[in-house]
Amino acid sequence: MTTDDPSGHRGHLFIVGGGEDRKNDKLVLSRFVELCGGPDARIFVLTAASTLHDEMWALYDEAFEALGVRQRSTALIASREDAGDERIARELYEADGIFMTGGDQKRLLALIGGTRIDEAMHRALRERGACIGGTSAGASAMSAHMLTEGKANPLPTKGTVHLGAGLGLVSRVIIDQHFSERQRLGRLLSVIAQNPYLLGAGIDEDTALIVRPGRGIEVIGQGAVTVVDGREMLTNYIDAARHESLELVNVRLHLLPAGARYDVDAGAGEPASRPVPRGLRQAIGAIASIRDAAERAGGHDAGD
Amino acid sequence: MTTDDPSGHRGHLFIVGGGEDRKNDKLVLSRFVELCGGPDARIFVLTAASTLHDEMWALYDEAFEALGVRQRSTALIASREDAGDERIARELYEADGIFMTGGDQKRLLALIGGTRIDEAMHRALRERGACIGGTSAGASAMSAHMLTEGKANPLPTKGTVHLGAGLGLVSRVIIDQHFSERQRLGRLLSVIAQNPYLLGAGIDEDTALIVRPGRGIEVIGQGAVTVVDGREMLTNYIDAARHESLELVNVRLHLLPAGARYDVDAGAGEPASRPVPRGLRQAIGAIASIRDAAERAGGHDAGD
Repeated sequence: MTTDDPSGHRGHLFIVGGGEDRKNDKLVLSRFVELCGGPDARIFVLTAASTLHDEMWALYDEAFEALGVRQRSTALIASREDAGDERIARELYEADGIFMTGGDQKRLLALIGGTRIDEAMHRALRERGACIGGTSAGASAMSAHMLTEGKANPLPTKGTVHLGAGLGLVSRVIIDQHFSERQRLGRLLSVIAQNPYLLGAGIDEDTALIVRPGRGIEVIGQGAVTVVDGREMLTNYIDAARHESLELVNVRLHLLPAGARYDVDAGAGEPASRPVPRGLRQAIGAIASIRDAAERAGGHDAGD
Repeated sequence: MTTDDPSGHRGHLFIVGGGEDRKNDKLVLSRFVELCGGPDARIFVLTAASTLHDEMWALYDEAFEALGVRQRSTALIASREDAGDERIARELYEADGIFMTGGDQKRLLALIGGTRIDEAMHRALRERGACIGGTSAGASAMSAHMLTEGKANPLPTKGTVHLGAGLGLVSRVIIDQHFSERQRLGRLLSVIAQNPYLLGAGIDEDTALIVRPGRGIEVIGQGAVTVVDGREMLTNYIDAARHESLELVNVRLHLLPAGARYDVDAGAGEPASRPVPRGLRQAIGAIASIRDAAERAGGHDAGD
């Protein structure tokens, strides 16, 4: 791990589109464990997005045990008071990996947003290089702006999606999950139409977008990550009526299936991945918090 | 209508994504009738894509009658011999509108491709300014290259779509229909990955893409037209294994809902539509056969 990372993060983000295999080959979770440091890692399962703490914990406790992880823990976070608990916050800070389960991202933020636990998670990522993972609601919650409501219209439509404040582990990105399975492109385009500064990243089930902060991204699992970039887009959003279908011209779309891996900035002594195509470079820079590198690489490349 | 059109066509193309309303407001079909010349127009219904000639004819006969069209006709085309019939070809040539029903585009081409009827339809469009319409299979068949088989995978996949020779009323475009309803973006991207020279145009149900050859396009109806442009795209298509999910980077996507209208080349004395955004210009030029105009407008604009 590099310590001079321009993003200031040392750890990986591990963003899962929901429905990851927990019973059979556990490809996605097994990579999470590896990024946490393997069987010796301390992994904390944060279930606060869900109302079913015991069931969620049982699921992941069993899965991580099967993957050889010995030090597994959790805590019931049922109130903001719980989320301010110094002992639990300390446990999160000292974990090598934190995994946020599915549920409802609004619940998760309402419980932990701005609390000691939230702070501990950020510090674990930044200072200790912990790997922070989340699936489904736990994935959506990772960005600074998160989807809180959104009808999955097949076509992008004005006024049908709503954002809220997320955890801010990544910024300038909106994360959607169960993406191909629930046909959510229209809804993600609705977000982009209203917020062209944000990139859309739609993650399929049993698929993870791995962010190496300050470095690049990788996609693993069964599906793909769909990135929609509206920075060059023209739209009638402002003039459209509420619930009207939107016109979007010049959206840039990247479809990155499992196996895709791009490093924008190779670490010292490490070989760079294949060159990153223009157009994709800024998108990855935004996702992986490589503002400086993207700027160094040619500044505003909206014209590429 | 202009006669000095660079495409050499005088008539409109009327490309419907299937499922157009035939019982109630008939918005789409009513516009077709208008473009054919209104109630006085002679409209020929070509059912050859379907095995159910009588049923198809009854449906459209009734719909066009309800729209006030007095001169409606059809013919049973059950063999290539029928499609070579001089009398039927003459009737098509003299029609003000020809409407191709749904069914199977392979059947349609197997019956009429290269016959007198095919020739008559082209000449009616080019010489007489007839409006040529098609819905569902009748829409797919209108392009030079048409989809003949394609599994609607959510993700673009190598080797899962197959093309055949279509009627060639438009070129450089692949038309897909029932587009949002049947979630066919993955399949259209599969085509583009393999054929980056072709634009993909996915048309929703009860929606028409109207092509004013040599001029521009318009979208009417309930849904939208999705245009995917892979000319700047980078893909691993060549190296991917059969049935492998494909990586696509830098696909340009345009979503044009009903109401969208762009003229690349305004006719003499007619006001131009609002300016056509760069990036969309070449796409519309390709759809509307405005090769010269697109070249005049700045040549290869892949960098815009």
